[in-house]
Amino acid sequence: MVGTELLLGQTVDTNAAYIAERLAANGINVYFKATVGDNWTRFAAVLAQALTRADVVIISGGLGPTEDDLTREVVAAVLHRPLVEDPQALAAIERWFAVSHRPMPPSARKQALIPEGARIIANANGTAPGFVVEHGNQTVVCLPGVPYEMKPMFDEVVLPYLRERYGLAGALYSRVLKFCGIGESALEERVRDLQHSANPTVAPYASLGEVKIRITARAENAEEAERLIAPVQQEIVRRVGEYMYGIDEDTLEGVAGRALLQAGWTLALAESCTGGLIAKRITDVPGSSAYFLGGVVSYSNEAKVKLLGVSEKTLAEHGAVSAPVAEQMALGAAERFGATLAVAVTGIAGPGGGSEAKPVGLVYIACALNGRAKAYRFQFQGGREQVRGLTAQTALDLIRRHALGLSTEL
Amino acid sequence: MVGTELLLGQTVDTNAAYIAERLAANGINVYFKATVGDNWTRFAAVLAQALTRADVVIISGGLGPTEDDLTREVVAAVLHRPLVEDPQALAAIERWFAVSHRPMPPSARKQALIPEGARIIANANGTAPGFVVEHGNQTVVCLPGVPYEMKPMFDEVVLPYLRERYGLAGALYSRVLKFCGIGESALEERVRDLQHSANPTVAPYASLGEVKIRITARAENAEEAERLIAPVQQEIVRRVGEYMYGIDEDTLEGVAGRALLQAGWTLALAESCTGGLIAKRITDVPGSSAYFLGGVVSYSNEAKVKLLGVSEKTLAEHGAVSAPVAEQMALGAAERFGATLAVAVTGIAGPGGGSEAKPVGLVYIACALNGRAKAYRFQFQGGREQVRGLTAQTALDLIRRHALGLSTEL
Repeated sequence: MVGTELLLGQTVDTNAAYIAERLAANGINVYFKATVGDNWTRFAAVLAQALTRADVVIISGGLGPTEDDLTREVVAAVLHRPLVEDPQALAAIERWFAVSHRPMPPSARKQALIPEGARIIANANGTAPGFVVEHGNQTVVCLPGVPYEMKPMFDEVVLPYLRERYGLAGALYSRVLKFCGIGESALEERVRDLQHSANPTVAPYASLGEVKIRITARAENAEEAERLIAPVQQEIVRRVGEYMYGIDEDTLEGVAGRALLQAGWTLALAESCTGGLIAKRITDVPGSSAYFLGGVVSYSNEAKVKLLGVSEKTLAEHGAVSAPVAEQMALGAAERFGATLAVAVTGIAGPGGGSEAKPVGLVYIACALNGRAKAYRFQFQGGREQVRGLTAQTALDLIRRHALGLSTEL
Repeated sequence: MVGTELLLGQTVDTNAAYIAERLAANGINVYFKATVGDNWTRFAAVLAQALTRADVVIISGGLGPTEDDLTREVVAAVLHRPLVEDPQALAAIERWFAVSHRPMPPSARKQALIPEGARIIANANGTAPGFVVEHGNQTVVCLPGVPYEMKPMFDEVVLPYLRERYGLAGALYSRVLKFCGIGESALEERVRDLQHSANPTVAPYASLGEVKIRITARAENAEEAERLIAPVQQEIVRRVGEYMYGIDEDTLEGVAGRALLQAGWTLALAESCTGGLIAKRITDVPGSSAYFLGGVVSYSNEAKVKLLGVSEKTLAEHGAVSAPVAEQMALGAAERFGATLAVAVTGIAGPGGGSEAKPVGLVYIACALNGRAKAYRFQFQGGREQVRGLTAQTALDLIRRHALGLSTEL
């Protein structure tokens, strides 16, 4: 991990965890991780030392066009190889600027330099290519530091390459079961006895508005792993399956979207306190236009009246954060977009705007289906970001439950 | 940083960034950071090496009661000191369990052991105390790995102790200038000569849709730091100030919101490809209801017609992703929400939906003000997330530029 910003604490290093997790899953033991700033001598010392104790050294960061990006130079120096310009890499960089309709600054050309004998790893999301240097039985891999550039390069090129080069077979196989509508303690109590298993291991962990259980098996191949994982997964589903929304790469918005698609339903949204967050998550899913018609972010009372048909009388009598207003918002969205299902949220995200009767965190979520609406009341805890995140999570789960015909008595 | 979970990638190491940031701010240079698993030999090797190259070694993690918590034993062994039970530490651990009304397991007693001559650092939020060992002119600090236990111990005890022991007066002071609408290479070229300065230092770094320049001064106090930073900041502003939107904790959505508030303007949005992301970012800002009236996420053509008044003829002639449709969306949003300024986006976020004439990444952003609309055309690169993120970033910058009366010729 290379970058002074990491040592100054201005950037939290998420790349290291990402790389380590995938290496572990592929049976590559990570024994050391070092972070070093944009300083030639210390960077060279760390790299030289890493080569005394590891077969594979993976470097992330320091491949940019600026003067303090030293990775190319340090790797070339430590491995005693000259830097050469790679024509393919140069062409890719030139193409990047041409497509962007921006002039290519002279400094960008530096990014086409690689140590002699290295192979380029193409970067689909940025200008700096990565590269791999084979050094005897050792391998030095250099990747950019920008996470969305580094990750696909690591997954699609580096990992298959390392598995092949080092003939890896046995590995860790993980499956993650994902839950919402149940807290971590409650879930953990119902699966506690399963956590004493050694292979596979069972471990719950929590994030905002959801809990995951990771089942990890050490096995020679995927079939053996499946034989170990399947019975444990079945037992967990038997106990707490009603809260489980998906596995592995499933997201709540993706699962909700698939359910809508299978039901042949369309969706519309009316958002007040979440301000577009639910629509943003629904449309994070490629292809969501097949079921998502659109939404209204009604941040003002006027917008609720004019764009969603909420009655001024109801607003005056019950206030914007109320069950009747949530229901009218949902009915209005269903009607105006012509959607099968509409979901509306109104609440107090904070930090201001709360009162004793309607404290920060109070949220109403309403669903409208077949011309009838029903509102649910929630009291969420935490700051603005938590309240908005929990509201979105709960609304997405309600969409999923409606489209799958599951109980929505939360 | 000690803990196998860090090497397995199951935990992102936020402690390192926390500690590094505070050390830097107090004039302690962090040159190396190493992460090691719960393995005796490798841990001892890393510690021994750290002692050859640093005055202060800070270890976080491995102080728990379980068998794989090795920090106490490794530190004692490497420093050639016996482990002794500290009566104060033992009393604190016993008190912790008594207050929690839980029986104290025998393994917890191990947490009262410290290397002979060490001083205890009390842990107000957990059972494991930390400790400091003075070893000649060197210092080894051991802290728990749980962030909410570690942080107050570090801030309240370790930092004052280190400042005192090493007679530190000077400290590092940083200012971050934030830019958008200019690439990293282009910005770097225009400030390259300033990067040769030693105090303050000047370093650019990039993230999605923005570039930052960090100016860092080593100074005795805040006033002296300001005297060092101010002229460099002024020179950078003179050269590239037209692209600068804020400093330090400023966000583009926060700055755009302040500009709207100061102009006395209101804002409405019409989003197609961003699907609510711009509204979500605008409403991330507490108090945004003072200027944000709302938005329409018009993910279907019908919604563009019905909720925003886009003409069916224009849609048929030019397609949904076109300058005329973007302009009509913006005018429709301005009119329906009664907003001073309306911004509309329509584009192809991908991965599907692109064609030769309208490739993935093609985006039109239109602004409507005083009944007149103008569309801007962009060709963004990257995957769905990047295209959506860059679109939102550019739209927020256009809002900022309009509200501040700056040029919008991008």
